[in-house]
Amino acid sequence: MKEDSKPYYAVIFTSTQNENIVGYSEMADKMENLAKQQKGFLGMDSARNNIGITVSYWKTIEAIKNWKQQIDHLQAQQKGRADWYSWYNVRICKVEREYEYFKK
Amino acid sequence: MKEDSKPYYAVIFTSTQNENIVGYSEMADKMENLAKQQKGFLGMDSARNNIGITVSYWKTIEAIKNWKQQIDHLQAQQKGRADWYSWYNVRICKVEREYEYFKK
Repeated sequence: MKEDSKPYYAVIFTSTQNENIVGYSEMADKMENLAKQQKGFLGMDSARNNIGITVSYWKTIEAIKNWKQQIDHLQAQQKGRADWYSWYNVRICKVEREYEYFKK
Repeated sequence: MKEDSKPYYAVIFTSTQNENIVGYSEMADKMENLAKQQKGFLGMDSARNNIGITVSYWKTIEAIKNWKQQIDHLQAQQKGRADWYSWYNVRICKVEREYEYFKK
């Protein structure tokens, strides 16, 4: 994120999945594309091994609330609870400091 | 995290690695074990695909500062920059809200 965009917010979504996750990958791609179109969206990082971690970055708490209530996203959340996730945790965080390293 | 531990802090460490990462896995295990012994440590989640994401959770900003300056951890950070990471980003965040879902 750029220096002048601070303070901003991060949503840390950690999850474990069921064995059968038919349709999950397509939905994850769809939701990522949809999130990128939301007002206040800044970026997203994802990785999964035993646990999945997706961190999305937002300008304001309001942008996070709007994304949580977005209609297609609500349907994806329901589908996630019904079919894909055995557990998940959502943390809404204020990013207070940030630093970055690039290999020369 | 437990409800009564809020507010608490999250350190979001995202990184990309070089192709040659000899010794990285052993160091990562060692640092995780060492972090667990630090005062104020609450937990840690890690996953890596194209990008690596490690989120560690701490009771206070002071605990995070102490961990950053811990002598063995300082050496690991130097080694990380010299040998393993092509890029990394560190975000210090205050966890403001949290909710969790368990499959029934």
